Amino acid sequence: MAEPSPETLETFENPFPERNYLIETVAPEFTSLCPKTGHPDFGTLTITYIADKLCYELKSLKLYLQEFRNHGAFYEKVTNTILDDLVAVTSPRWMKIEAAFTPRGGIRTTVIVEHGKKPE
Amino acid sequence: MAEPSPETLETFENPFPERNYLIETVAPEFTSLCPKTGHPDFGTLTITYIADKLCYELKSLKLYLQEFRNHGAFYEKVTNTILDDLVAVTSPRWMKIEAAFTPRGGIRTTVIVEHGKKPE
Amino acid sequence: MAEPSPETLETFENPFPERNYLIETVAPEFTSLCPKTGHPDFGTLTITYIADKLCYELKSLKLYLQEFRNHGAFYEKVTNTILDDLVAVTSPRWMKIEAAFTPRGGIRTTVIVEHGKKPE
Amino acid sequence: MAEPSPETLETFENPFPERNYLIETVAPEFTSLCPKTGHPDFGTLTITYIADKLCYELKSLKLYLQEFRNHGAFYEKVTNTILDDLVAVTSPRWMKIEAAFTPRGGIRTTVIVEHGKKPE
Amino acid sequence: MAEPSPETLETFENPFPERNYLIETVAPEFTSLCPKTGHPDFGTLTITYIADKLCYELKSLKLYLQEFRNHGAFYEKVTNTILDDLVAVTSPRWMKIEAAFTPRGGIRTTVIVEHGKKPE
Amino acid sequence: MAEPSPETLETFENPFPERNYLIETVAPEFTSLCPKTGHPDFGTLTITYIADKLCYELKSLKLYLQEFRNHGAFYEKVTNTILDDLVAVTSPRWMKIEAAFTPRGGIRTTVIVEHGKKPE
Amino acid sequence: MAEPSPETLETFENPFPERNYLIETVAPEFTSLCPKTGHPDFGTLTITYIADKLCYELKSLKLYLQEFRNHGAFYEKVTNTILDDLVAVTSPRWMKIEAAFTPRGGIRTTVIVEHGKKPE
Amino acid sequence: MAEPSPETLETFENPFPERNYLIETVAPEFTSLCPKTGHPDFGTLTITYIADKLCYELKSLKLYLQEFRNHGAFYEKVTNTILDDLVAVTSPRWMKIEAAFTPRGGIRTTVIVEHGKKPE
Amino acid sequence: MAEPSPETLETFENPFPERNYLIETVAPEFTSLCPKTGHPDFGTLTITYIADKLCYELKSLKLYLQEFRNHGAFYEKVTNTILDDLVAVTSPRWMKIEAAFTPRGGIRTTVIVEHGKKPE
Amino acid sequence: MAEPSPETLETFENPFPERNYLIETVAPEFTSLCPKTGHPDFGTLTITYIADKLCYELKSLKLYLQEFRNHGAFYEKVTNTILDDLVAVTSPRWMKIEAAFTPRGGIRTTVIVEHGKKPE
Repeated sequence: MAEPSPETLETFENPFPERNYLIETVAPEFTSLCPKTGHPDFGTLTITYIADKLCYELKSLKLYLQEFRNHGAFYEKVTNTILDDLVAVTSPRWMKIEAAFTPRGGIRTTVIVEHGKKPE
Repeated sequence: MAEPSPETLETFENPFPERNYLIETVAPEFTSLCPKTGHPDFGTLTITYIADKLCYELKSLKLYLQEFRNHGAFYEKVTNTILDDLVAVTSPRWMKIEAAFTPRGGIRTTVIVEHGKKPE
Repeated sequence: MAEPSPETLETFENPFPERNYLIETVAPEFTSLCPKTGHPDFGTLTITYIADKLCYELKSLKLYLQEFRNHGAFYEKVTNTILDDLVAVTSPRWMKIEAAFTPRGGIRTTVIVEHGKKPE
Repeated sequence: MAEPSPETLETFENPFPERNYLIETVAPEFTSLCPKTGHPDFGTLTITYIADKLCYELKSLKLYLQEFRNHGAFYEKVTNTILDDLVAVTSPRWMKIEAAFTPRGGIRTTVIVEHGKKPE
Repeated sequence: MAEPSPETLETFENPFPERNYLIETVAPEFTSLCPKTGHPDFGTLTITYIADKLCYELKSLKLYLQEFRNHGAFYEKVTNTILDDLVAVTSPRWMKIEAAFTPRGGIRTTVIVEHGKKPE
Repeated sequence: MAEPSPETLETFENPFPERNYLIETVAPEFTSLCPKTGHPDFGTLTITYIADKLCYELKSLKLYLQEFRNHGAFYEKVTNTILDDLVAVTSPRWMKIEAAFTPRGGIRTTVIVEHGKKPE
Repeated sequence: MAEPSPETLETFENPFPERNYLIETVAPEFTSLCPKTGHPDFGTLTITYIADKLCYELKSLKLYLQEFRNHGAFYEKVTNTILDDLVAVTSPRWMKIEAAFTPRGGIRTTVIVEHGKKPE
Repeated sequence: MAEPSPETLETFENPFPERNYLIETVAPEFTSLCPKTGHPDFGTLTITYIADKLCYELKSLKLYLQEFRNHGAFYEKVTNTILDDLVAVTSPRWMKIEAAFTPRGGIRTTVIVEHGKKPE
Repeated sequence: MAEPSPETLETFENPFPERNYLIETVAPEFTSLCPKTGHPDFGTLTITYIADKLCYELKSLKLYLQEFRNHGAFYEKVTNTILDDLVAVTSPRWMKIEAAFTPRGGIRTTVIVEHGKKPE
Repeated sequence: MAEPSPETLETFENPFPERNYLIETVAPEFTSLCPKTGHPDFGTLTITYIADKLCYELKSLKLYLQEFRNHGAFYEKVTNTILDDLVAVTSPRWMKIEAAFTPRGGIRTTVIVEHGKKPE
């Protein structure tokens, strides 16, 4: 499998750009590698956004997320990187990612990042 | 079955127009077809609104939603279209639709659209 | 059983009128008849209020709600009527009723009505 | 879409015929039409079996079940028919289908059919 | 509404009499009156049976159960009576009714009655 | 309140003695006192039985259980005593009591006692 | 057991008075008597507060709440009284009590009282 | 704290030795140390038994289990040891321990040990 | 990462071979590749066994299961293979694996395989 | 094990200091000793913060929290102390700790402390 690259992400035109509406995508099968131990990490990504001109296409999002399968990255880094990639490709009015990882050593971590200010 | 048409929707007079009150309708048996693959999609629609002069009649809403059974439409399109149709027929003071679709490829999507500004 | 009448409702003096506090009553065994089909409807009423001088007495509330057992009324009508009756009898500072009915034809409806503005 | 036909079902060779083991398939997106009213029915099928020489292929099972989408059939009939079709195509050592349908008129029905005697 | 009578129950021919299979019907909106206090009782009936030549028709079952709405009967009596009526009309190979009533005075009761011996 | 006494328990004639059927009573508001510390204990009693000639009356059961409110008794003792009292008064074909107490010192206890052998 | 008295309540010095922080105490084993019927009531108290100079000591809170065991009081009265007692003894910056009682006659009640304005 | 020793366990006479009844004790706050890493392990112990002449006293059980707090032991060892100790002290007719440990490295383990044959 | 090999699995001596006791290991982070599409599959493995002379060591089990991460295998094949490998290495008195995979195309599959006959 | 000391805590550089984002860490295996009774306390810590220049390293956090294992501290004290230590080491823009302890004497306590004002 390839390394994660925003070029994998495809978009389509927002069919209702005149309306501020929410799209929420839940991807519970995210997995990457811990750069320190090499062991797999697992988590659930919840991506919520208000599109401007472009929406990401779901199948390409799935392929993009699969590219992290054999990629080493810390929780904080991987979540911010995915946000940056999705923002670069879709230029949304607002976007938030909540990444909830499964427990390690009895402790579990969630990272929540946001781009822009949510329109009321 | 016929194609989806707002003409299927019937209305009745709001019995308490002097009060801003919420009506919430949950339709967990919504199904349409994916326009790309032809496979069925399934979801739960939650429609919430504050009626002005008219309420939609529940049996006609059910028939209207059933008309999507053999109709091809993307998540974002179908949700916005249903909102537009319900708004056209009932002219509510405020309306919101939350459409939660079942997972495809391990990923699930929810689309949330809103018409007007909810009165306090 | 008698027809629904606010006269069934009894009250007692609010023991702490100097304080704005919430009383919440959940009645999950509400049933009335559908005026169109004659079939029974079932729902859960959640009544929340801030009393002024009077509280409703719980046993009389139960008897009042039982009077709807063989009474025909649409969801929107019955919820607004119960609010009007309770307001007429207790003159609360604020009151809200949330009526969640069980599914019919795969669709379920909740009606939420409010009287006055909730004090902060 | 075509009418339901066992010919849609494809099989593959049981990779471990020397062992009696269970395969359970849960299909929560089954839908057909009520032959009396024409309205859609919805249900979850749980198919459990011990294969002999053949297993059904999952994608073809999905297509076979989709063929019921515009097909009229009562609960008892449709469940027995699916069992008969799957048995005809795979000749399992044992098979059970539990079909749990969503409520209609406040009443919900489950049909449980079995073929053969489960080996201990 | 009429008094409960087995004559309300309609049947149809068991479409697969050569197979011993289970039909389970869950009716969560059962209500009758307490013969001592006149107050309504509420419960969920779960009827499970193996039909012989006849199945009960679901709409007629619903109407039959609605006839208990203004009928006074103790928990033990009403459950045994419904079993007797359903057995009289359908002559099943085996039938079980589990009637779970809602709490009264902080105590809740379930009555479980059975007709015949369940075939293996 | 009085001390617990089987004389508080009233019975009525089993309306269907020709049938072995189950009656289950769940009493989640049982409370007694710890004889060692004097602090209250709390638990949920689940009584299941097959009546012979007599059933216990529910209101009298409630009063009987309330008599333990200021009575000191260990878990094992109180559960066996209630079984003995109920058996003495109703002479059932079979009876079981499961008493699940709330945690003390982070540990929770359940006592399960049975009278007779459950008829098949 | 003694009658409820705020004198049972003991306090200790708030170890971090320079910080506005929340302490939440959940007591699910509260019981008192209904003054009308003499029957026991059961409920869960959730007490949340921001201490000023004093915190209540947990063991003494438990003993204070146990003093209601054989004390008659209506829901609204008992909740307000406990708030008044705790405020009198600890003079908190802010305090809230939510008392959720178990159902009686199929209806359950929650009373929510508050002292002071919660600091942001 | 001391090392785990069966001498910490105290017993009392079974108040109903003439009856085979179950006592179930759930201790969700068990913790010991991993002998390999020195890190703490956590688990829930469910002990079920039929006493003969002696029952273990709950407070002494709690103290006995606390003695494992700084004691190193593998899952399989610790569970079998506790069973042996409890059997040695109470000589039960039958006893079972289910020890469910929290996940380590994404994997969780449960050990289930039994002494004697459960009487019917 | 290496290809799956039973040589990764390490064992230790069963500390209580004189007792038939159960060890249950739940591994919810299993992932492999679909040999047809190349897309990842995800599932939860529940392994239960009664050891004879040897137990598998948990850390080596984790490493063994991780070796399936980039390995293509169908559900039925992968489950039977893991059972065969674990049996080869530990020669248990009895072993069962339940592999519950996440939904694909709205359908989810569980495979349950067993080795030997569970001793009573 | 050592006494709790902030020196155990290690940090790493916040990889995205230009963004205000949330990191939430849930540690459900926290245990300390009650200073009055010497008995163990158990709780779940939820730490949420917005890092400035430094993040705490998870493994060192785990070791730091383990140092409370044989340390005596009251609920309010231990929660405020952990907040102070984490703030001293990471100087976050905002931090909150919610410590939910398991029930003692039927009563459970949660302490919620906050440092700084959460940026919008």
